[in-house]
Amino acid sequence: MKTPVQIAVTGAAGQISYALLFRLIAGDLAGADQPVVLRLLEVPEAMTAVQGVVMELTDCASPLLAGVIVSSDPYEVFENADLAFLIGAKPRGPGMERRDLLQVNAEIFSRQGQALNEAAKRSVKVLVIGNPANTNALIALRNAPDLPPKNFSAMTRLDHNRAVSLLANRCNCSVEEIRKVIIWGNHSSTQYPDLHHALVRGRSALEQVEQSWFRDDFIPTVQKRGAVVIEVRGKSSAASAAHAAIGQMRNWIKGTPEDDWVSMAILSDGSYGIAEGLVYSFPVAVRDGEYQIVQGLAIDDFSRERMHLSEAELQAEQETVKHLL
Amino acid sequence: MKTPVQIAVTGAAGQISYALLFRLIAGDLAGADQPVVLRLLEVPEAMTAVQGVVMELTDCASPLLAGVIVSSDPYEVFENADLAFLIGAKPRGPGMERRDLLQVNAEIFSRQGQALNEAAKRSVKVLVIGNPANTNALIALRNAPDLPPKNFSAMTRLDHNRAVSLLANRCNCSVEEIRKVIIWGNHSSTQYPDLHHALVRGRSALEQVEQSWFRDDFIPTVQKRGAVVIEVRGKSSAASAAHAAIGQMRNWIKGTPEDDWVSMAILSDGSYGIAEGLVYSFPVAVRDGEYQIVQGLAIDDFSRERMHLSEAELQAEQETVKHLL
Repeated sequence: MKTPVQIAVTGAAGQISYALLFRLIAGDLAGADQPVVLRLLEVPEAMTAVQGVVMELTDCASPLLAGVIVSSDPYEVFENADLAFLIGAKPRGPGMERRDLLQVNAEIFSRQGQALNEAAKRSVKVLVIGNPANTNALIALRNAPDLPPKNFSAMTRLDHNRAVSLLANRCNCSVEEIRKVIIWGNHSSTQYPDLHHALVRGRSALEQVEQSWFRDDFIPTVQKRGAVVIEVRGKSSAASAAHAAIGQMRNWIKGTPEDDWVSMAILSDGSYGIAEGLVYSFPVAVRDGEYQIVQGLAIDDFSRERMHLSEAELQAEQETVKHLL
Repeated sequence: MKTPVQIAVTGAAGQISYALLFRLIAGDLAGADQPVVLRLLEVPEAMTAVQGVVMELTDCASPLLAGVIVSSDPYEVFENADLAFLIGAKPRGPGMERRDLLQVNAEIFSRQGQALNEAAKRSVKVLVIGNPANTNALIALRNAPDLPPKNFSAMTRLDHNRAVSLLANRCNCSVEEIRKVIIWGNHSSTQYPDLHHALVRGRSALEQVEQSWFRDDFIPTVQKRGAVVIEVRGKSSAASAAHAAIGQMRNWIKGTPEDDWVSMAILSDGSYGIAEGLVYSFPVAVRDGEYQIVQGLAIDDFSRERMHLSEAELQAEQETVKHLL
């Protein structure tokens, strides 16, 4: 039997985790022959709810579930973790300013960064999903100085998937016929979903849709999709977020196709003129478990302006939490 | 590209469906190369919520999702269905007697049976999950006289999985080392989880656990597990139910292992002295997409008594809804 993969999941009692965990024990991420140990972090107040989830996980009688650890101590949860999904974050409460939100989450993620630094495998892959995801990821990696920053990313795969799906729908083609969509920037409404390099059935996407549709319809639709789902469904995206998390982590582990890339928010190295030291979403190719920013793409003024807008938002977020960086 | 499988799901806005649908488009049931068309049934009041789910399904950009149909008309939803998960059922409301509950669900399932009879593929496999599942399945199949009754089953796989998991835990072994557990009877607290034929690491289970544990601990724990999960989690089992639904349907399609069986509630043919014409859970083996009751198992008095208790409950349920049979 294979050695189990140690998978840490924070916010284990929440809706995204509920959509994720059962897929992990069904082999959707690591494969149908790969046992997993689930290492679940939750705040003490939600421990009973987590126990309920653990009962259900056990009740699946999955041969892939090699063990479950539940704790409120991040050091215990991250011990020897191969993979970590950082989902748990404080949502914005009534009367809470964005600044307060950044602050309270910054504290959570700095503590988790320290625990990862201390306890996780040196090769751990950390995917931050809890919002504000980019800045939370930045805080986590800055608080884990003994781990390479390339072990961290924040999730923009849901945005990427939404962009692919919307373009496929517009062009009346299958999602498999869409390639090279990019999400630039922050996982927020300033993100820039870019079609300048996208291909539809192998030909330039922007030659197949109208400029006005791209600028006035596609971009804002992708940017605001999360809010619209909440409005329609009455709850925030959970299952599609879990699906995207599996997708991003799987590509990170298993690589990206030769003729395509994915979007991941990662520590900027200055590529495309984006300030170093921000966690920013770029197009990346993955080989042997390591992502590389796709280089050499032509950026026009329209794109550059939008890329900088999202960069500016991230700089402002960074400023708010700089004492924890 | 393969022809898509047409999968109907009722109660599409509910929690079990939310846990099921995203696994269907990830290939967990039909395979990673098998496209699916989802045919979603919901009451008009919940249509907006279903639209939210459809948005999220679309947002997954899964190449396996070949289409989604949403309707409140069972004839439209079941048209050409290959597989149907009947999840939607009226839960017991305040002041509602069990009799009323049976009645209101009987009407839903008789209408759905008629629609399946008219519209579904002649080879459709119908899995009833909505409670009272056994009697709902009976009503559906009786209202579908042009479909073979063997196309219908009710779900006792969650109970089966719980029994396997509990026994594995007791014997400190992996779930893969457990075989031949049986759930007899109704998917209710009268069900009889039977270990007389079960094997643990190839040896008789009842020689490895104490009789008192089997009788006073194991049986009631499995019978009441659903209520305990609700108590602890604050919500009823959804993800483990969806997992069991995939498991039961997958075994039904792909067969059971040579050296094991599964529990499925199906139309009784009188085997083991259980009255013909009830939908009752038996141990079944599946070959070429068709289940057969495992014959020739020795039944002692202890087991017989419990099997009849659950049979009597099903007969009483049947009596309540006999005008729809």
